[in-house]
Amino acid sequence: MVSETSLREKLAACTRILAMQGLIGLFGHVSVFDPQRRRVFMSPSQGFDKTGVTEKDILVSRLDGSIEDGGARLPLEWPIHMALHERRADALAVAHLHAPYATLFSMTERAFRPVTLQGSIFCGGIPTYTQPHLVRSMEQGIQIADLICDRPAAFMRGHGIIVVARDIEQMLFSTLILEDEAQKQIMLSSMGDFRCISDEDCAAFGAAAELPGRAQRAWSYYCGCEKRLGHAGGGPVPFV
Amino acid sequence: MVSETSLREKLAACTRILAMQGLIGLFGHVSVFDPQRRRVFMSPSQGFDKTGVTEKDILVSRLDGSIEDGGARLPLEWPIHMALHERRADALAVAHLHAPYATLFSMTERAFRPVTLQGSIFCGGIPTYTQPHLVRSMEQGIQIADLICDRPAAFMRGHGIIVVARDIEQMLFSTLILEDEAQKQIMLSSMGDFRCISDEDCAAFGAAAELPGRAQRAWSYYCGCEKRLGHAGGGPVPFV
Amino acid sequence: MVSETSLREKLAACTRILAMQGLIGLFGHVSVFDPQRRRVFMSPSQGFDKTGVTEKDILVSRLDGSIEDGGARLPLEWPIHMALHERRADALAVAHLHAPYATLFSMTERAFRPVTLQGSIFCGGIPTYTQPHLVRSMEQGIQIADLICDRPAAFMRGHGIIVVARDIEQMLFSTLILEDEAQKQIMLSSMGDFRCISDEDCAAFGAAAELPGRAQRAWSYYCGCEKRLGHAGGGPVPFV
Amino acid sequence: MVSETSLREKLAACTRILAMQGLIGLFGHVSVFDPQRRRVFMSPSQGFDKTGVTEKDILVSRLDGSIEDGGARLPLEWPIHMALHERRADALAVAHLHAPYATLFSMTERAFRPVTLQGSIFCGGIPTYTQPHLVRSMEQGIQIADLICDRPAAFMRGHGIIVVARDIEQMLFSTLILEDEAQKQIMLSSMGDFRCISDEDCAAFGAAAELPGRAQRAWSYYCGCEKRLGHAGGGPVPFV
Repeated sequence: MVSETSLREKLAACTRILAMQGLIGLFGHVSVFDPQRRRVFMSPSQGFDKTGVTEKDILVSRLDGSIEDGGARLPLEWPIHMALHERRADALAVAHLHAPYATLFSMTERAFRPVTLQGSIFCGGIPTYTQPHLVRSMEQGIQIADLICDRPAAFMRGHGIIVVARDIEQMLFSTLILEDEAQKQIMLSSMGDFRCISDEDCAAFGAAAELPGRAQRAWSYYCGCEKRLGHAGGGPVPFV
Repeated sequence: MVSETSLREKLAACTRILAMQGLIGLFGHVSVFDPQRRRVFMSPSQGFDKTGVTEKDILVSRLDGSIEDGGARLPLEWPIHMALHERRADALAVAHLHAPYATLFSMTERAFRPVTLQGSIFCGGIPTYTQPHLVRSMEQGIQIADLICDRPAAFMRGHGIIVVARDIEQMLFSTLILEDEAQKQIMLSSMGDFRCISDEDCAAFGAAAELPGRAQRAWSYYCGCEKRLGHAGGGPVPFV
Repeated sequence: MVSETSLREKLAACTRILAMQGLIGLFGHVSVFDPQRRRVFMSPSQGFDKTGVTEKDILVSRLDGSIEDGGARLPLEWPIHMALHERRADALAVAHLHAPYATLFSMTERAFRPVTLQGSIFCGGIPTYTQPHLVRSMEQGIQIADLICDRPAAFMRGHGIIVVARDIEQMLFSTLILEDEAQKQIMLSSMGDFRCISDEDCAAFGAAAELPGRAQRAWSYYCGCEKRLGHAGGGPVPFV
Repeated sequence: MVSETSLREKLAACTRILAMQGLIGLFGHVSVFDPQRRRVFMSPSQGFDKTGVTEKDILVSRLDGSIEDGGARLPLEWPIHMALHERRADALAVAHLHAPYATLFSMTERAFRPVTLQGSIFCGGIPTYTQPHLVRSMEQGIQIADLICDRPAAFMRGHGIIVVARDIEQMLFSTLILEDEAQKQIMLSSMGDFRCISDEDCAAFGAAAELPGRAQRAWSYYCGCEKRLGHAGGGPVPFV
């Protein structure tokens, strides 16, 4: 059983890494569910500079959105997380992000298909939630959970993305792969036709089976980078 | 009534945040109007490194462009600001910027339409000022104010953008949204057709009603980031 | 008469600013000509990290390429500079750069036309040198000078650009405008048709007449930025 | 005969430079072969933050992949390197990278052709390895070596690139050229037709003959930049 301290520290590190990579900023939040204690841990809301999030800033709540630690408020769209944590036993970590490239697939007419071998974890396709609202109620959250079904991600039209995974490490890795796939396809598009990975090739690559090991190595790598760059990352702050 | 000190400090912070985000540099200026004292506060002119602007660098003038603090000169295109402050009771904060992506919409044949839910504050469309001149006179300024009418922004052909808002926080947030919308559409364009947000969906989202609250949260967020990155932001200086 | 010390210091500052902006790196060099003493001052060659160039690193030579200060060697393509300094009384400052965006216009079938009001200094068009060689001899240098004639710039096919100006400040400003024009057109291209500035509008804007004043203000601005970011500019080193 | 210390130090510097340039990160590795002692030196595997690699982190192994220094493991795809070192006397340095732009050519239908004079070292074309697998066995490594034959590079479909050179300096320089060529072509593509360098012009330029000298000057340049920026390079960590 993973300790609460460990979940808080990992989720805070994940938030800082996503901020370092320009994937979380003004908008976006990540969560992890502890099925034993039935508690949800979530990164803090809009006003917060995510590059400096520590375990103390992580919010703790129940699946109905009632918060355990007094004071702070959950991010407005908490039902995205709660609905998925409640509905799927394999949805222990959930990200809602305004990732710059992946979000574009919520607006294009072109269907998402993986173009890299690593991207074959998304070979089952990614659905798009088309309602023009923020997700403020559990009813809406459950609609999205139903739409996603057993898939690892969803696009939200004109809005952002959702990534679902078994743990924080896989949620981070899947998010980075999805953004990289999206960026590659946008760059490729200006060059005319390009080749996606076929369903047969996706199956042959076996990305899903190796995801835990790869996610673990990526986690070590990004934690190292985040420690080095830390709170000092420069350049424009992404509007995400 | 907002104090002069507060307006100066906020406008200086807004200037530094826009500089950090690559939206103000060699060119561009922002202003705020105090309707009680009939004074305009404006960021300093071209030669100034905007990442280091403090409240002491903010210029104070009357609506006719006559400056109150001796010494420094107003930016050349001050009439853009004065005409809008004078004509519209809701134009208390005005930005003129050479924002890299949004400015491209002054050159394309394609009409601007929002592609994100947040972007629906611009659902009424954005007009383009097509005169091939800088705006050096009040007569030209009034032409632009008439063109903009009650809308929140304008493109200036081959030149830049204007953003109009009720206060500094909303001016910053609207500017960031407009630039983000423009960037998304340019990236989307290489992928073929894409979906804009319909007028009905814009109305359903209610962006205008929630703008003040969102702008306030964004303000807290960017002030935090600016304090962290401060004067140390690295990388190429944008030519804006 | 400008002192040698001033020319050396200005050329060194110009080199550091171009390096900060990602316009000079492994490749590229800038020069200034002193018509009284018939001396050419030039930035150092390939191996040198240009972000740290000081007045002591500036090379001094005669128009035939013979170097005055012993030791160091002129950049391989010095004849580009010498031919222009010799042939044109108004070519006192010359840049040869592998600027990332502007260089693309040496490879495209599309003719360069200004899209911004500032860009109207290039309204007379920019010729392309199509020979598949580096410029190692005065004969080749004179061919290029003849091709450029009285224009402010040239593209070199599959290679780079040349910018010609009356002084270092105008050379820097013209280079930044050219790169910005090129970048804008590449971004615009993915959106379909776009509007260039017509010859009449170029004439009406009067960019040439105001170039000295604008170049001077831009010089102050970039010198301030370079002092702030100094030798500490981070991020990928451009391959230019 | 080059000392082992020198090979280790150079390969570590090369790794750090590639990391600084965003060409090695989570994925990718470089190697150098010492034909006298029959030893392969290789950069460390996935989890490692490549910006901090020193000579102590370099792995030493035999051509069969058996490691000499106990403890650490070779990167999973070591057979890419071993097969090339074994098969080609001129393949003393080998890179396998997920370079962001060059990798796109493994997915596009468009054939790679050089667009710059420097790029003419690749005028013989670059083959694509189309198997949807990682290269985990010497059998697969030999298939790739056969595909590459005597050429300087290969694309790996939906995966990455391989660059082959006579020494570390040329491997670095060729990699930087290939990435720059790819980036230019992607930017050019949005502008319509563009001109590649013809076979005759490639031959006239003589890039191959001058490669050693150019690679040496580039090496000095990038070592200088890497010392300056060192471990402090900021901004998003590329997903490569």
